[in-house]
Amino acid sequence: MSSPFSQSVTFTPELHIGGVSATSLAKEFGTPLYVIDEADFFTRAMAWKSALDSHFGSHAGTVYYAAKSQINREIARWINQVGIGIDVCTGGEMAVAASVNFPGEGMELHGNNKSEAEIADAIEYGVGAIVMDSFHEIERVARLAHERGKVQKVLLRLTAGISAHTHEFMATAHEDVKFGFSIASGAAWKAIEEVQSHPSLRLAGFHSHIGSQIFGSEGFAIAAARLIELSAKFRDAFGSELPELDLGGGYGIAYLPGEESMVPDAVLASLFAVVSEECAKHSLAIPRVSIEPGRAIVGPTTFSLYTVGTTKTVELDGGLTRRYVAIDGGMSDNIRPALYGATYHAVLANRESSAKPTSSRIVGKHCETGDILIREIDLQADIQPGDLIAIPATGAYGRSLASNYNHLPRPAVVAVKDGVARVIVKRESYADLMAHDL
Amino acid sequence: MSSPFSQSVTFTPELHIGGVSATSLAKEFGTPLYVIDEADFFTRAMAWKSALDSHFGSHAGTVYYAAKSQINREIARWINQVGIGIDVCTGGEMAVAASVNFPGEGMELHGNNKSEAEIADAIEYGVGAIVMDSFHEIERVARLAHERGKVQKVLLRLTAGISAHTHEFMATAHEDVKFGFSIASGAAWKAIEEVQSHPSLRLAGFHSHIGSQIFGSEGFAIAAARLIELSAKFRDAFGSELPELDLGGGYGIAYLPGEESMVPDAVLASLFAVVSEECAKHSLAIPRVSIEPGRAIVGPTTFSLYTVGTTKTVELDGGLTRRYVAIDGGMSDNIRPALYGATYHAVLANRESSAKPTSSRIVGKHCETGDILIREIDLQADIQPGDLIAIPATGAYGRSLASNYNHLPRPAVVAVKDGVARVIVKRESYADLMAHDL
Repeated sequence: MSSPFSQSVTFTPELHIGGVSATSLAKEFGTPLYVIDEADFFTRAMAWKSALDSHFGSHAGTVYYAAKSQINREIARWINQVGIGIDVCTGGEMAVAASVNFPGEGMELHGNNKSEAEIADAIEYGVGAIVMDSFHEIERVARLAHERGKVQKVLLRLTAGISAHTHEFMATAHEDVKFGFSIASGAAWKAIEEVQSHPSLRLAGFHSHIGSQIFGSEGFAIAAARLIELSAKFRDAFGSELPELDLGGGYGIAYLPGEESMVPDAVLASLFAVVSEECAKHSLAIPRVSIEPGRAIVGPTTFSLYTVGTTKTVELDGGLTRRYVAIDGGMSDNIRPALYGATYHAVLANRESSAKPTSSRIVGKHCETGDILIREIDLQADIQPGDLIAIPATGAYGRSLASNYNHLPRPAVVAVKDGVARVIVKRESYADLMAHDL
Repeated sequence: MSSPFSQSVTFTPELHIGGVSATSLAKEFGTPLYVIDEADFFTRAMAWKSALDSHFGSHAGTVYYAAKSQINREIARWINQVGIGIDVCTGGEMAVAASVNFPGEGMELHGNNKSEAEIADAIEYGVGAIVMDSFHEIERVARLAHERGKVQKVLLRLTAGISAHTHEFMATAHEDVKFGFSIASGAAWKAIEEVQSHPSLRLAGFHSHIGSQIFGSEGFAIAAARLIELSAKFRDAFGSELPELDLGGGYGIAYLPGEESMVPDAVLASLFAVVSEECAKHSLAIPRVSIEPGRAIVGPTTFSLYTVGTTKTVELDGGLTRRYVAIDGGMSDNIRPALYGATYHAVLANRESSAKPTSSRIVGKHCETGDILIREIDLQADIQPGDLIAIPATGAYGRSLASNYNHLPRPAVVAVKDGVARVIVKRESYADLMAHDL
């Protein structure tokens, strides 16, 4: 059966990652802990780059790692070493990349409400592309670039009328979302004309992002077709072809055993087929196509390691019972189950057990009833305080959405490779949590 | 119409709090900003203390401020100045209180999974009561107290079979929650016997917390009756009466105009009626009753102040439109709408406007479609970038659940009183967000 753990994880006689045991990780770094498989990160990032390059050839644009999924200085260095780009949404994410001298041309700035300071910083840093999201922003970027004597490359974020969520997608006329310019309403065309009127802006193409944790290619195909149709209209009106097309991210990953992550090679084969077909239909040259995987790179690389603190068996109606297994983290280090009803897998990490599986719930240590990481899972009945629990596929939107709820310090991030574990983000202390208090 | 804003807020010609205008707050401290009405905090905290004292007289226990709702060093000082106690759930919350020399006897330690280090720290600090939540913990507290030659006062957290949420509650035999010992299953009685067997533990009474954001007294009455019935059974078995009873918190507050917060005097009158009646029924002396308001004290004291960055009108089906108003914060500084579907009110804060109200949605600046603070609100159609928006009743579970999602620095907390505004929690910088990165 497929596993949501990263490639270097093994389970006998206890969980090891990159040759390092769960027990030694807990002993050296403490728990809760985010443990990232460094080689797996490079493999996944390279797989997206290779798939884009091999299917699109000279029409390959850039793989932009979506920083929102998880970013820190070391991950920014890795991204740069792989030789792909980075998609940042804020000045803060841009500052992380800039702090490790990430090349400006490999950066793309997103966001529905960029501040003037963020835009100015991006222009001055030489960010490769600013993805524009509103008429207010067109005016701002144009003005701030003009004031600096620069011509800024921009993309327009369009809503193509696709609402995609996991296994289903809908094609609609309108999208009731904060992002982008609607093609159907005419806002997109008006934005194009507006951008074209500013000499300090150079429109390179369109951008679309249809959703998150998507499986299947239908949504991407419809979005690509609608963007390319608009590109043809642009060519007819302005006499030149747009050289780029950014189809965003949202590629689904496996969270549970038996689920399968989207495969880069298959995704890019499918994108190339639709892009080449739609371009041929409109007699357009194939543009340079870019994509923005984030979760699809970092999500499967990481597991969260916890220590069990207490257990408790609760009687339910009908003579059933539920075993509560409380770990030393919770909704502060992984809010996805509480926020989205996200599902996760878990394993006993420090030993093997052939004890009978029993209906269990993994909960955190927060003073909140909804502090549940896994609502229902069969776990060995002999799991006891002191045991370690590993929850895989927590690399994306775990640390990045983490809080200090109940004044829990945020866990360290430890990278493991070839038998060596090292901290890449330090654990917070109680003093850190009061450092801003007067 | 009642307002969810704190007592010192006025609206003409623009929003003022404690005599300070929204415009000057934004200019001096920047946005997003949490603005807390210091006098209002003292008034609300005192109202709970006065109501407990006046209704229970010599049977009044302690008002414990629930730190999880919002805690920092200054708020811990305020709580101490008011002369009430503090309920902490973790070592981190305890560390904040300890850092301002909060008296140990006024502290109560909660949590379903306290670590041994947290328990040891609490015993050594002289925390007044540890509220025990599992059999593992009874053993741990007994052992750690014994090792230190101390007798620790403890309460037992019981699940009384009440599930209360806002306007409804259910009385059931079982509670499928991680907290407490079930009365119905017999676990509670077993825990009592276990505690009684340890000379290093002194059982002072029972604790119950039935839920959050509760209106009405029925749930509290049923819980109190069940706890008092068990107290009578304790008296019959052990020949002495338990001197304390802690009925927890969960008192609902107004988030929207027209809603009414629970009134301390009414709450305590109702609690006294049920406690005295149930005690009389079982020929028990009335114990010292404690309560744990958190949200009910700090929630209404605070509004969040934002600057509008962009606006956008989206066409919906049926010829309708929705105006998106994007502010410079979002789900990182207030995750309650995304997490619980919580509803909030908002007002234009920097000026008066008689422009036509239009169907609007207040969204943040995060790269996430669900980054919505208010799904539907009528706001003046002339609201534009640069305007200030104030969202009231964000004092509880705003800053305490805040994240750095998209690397947004967490906002400052500013206290205002008598025309003077001062920072009590500093705003984070980009450098702070990278301070733990290697």
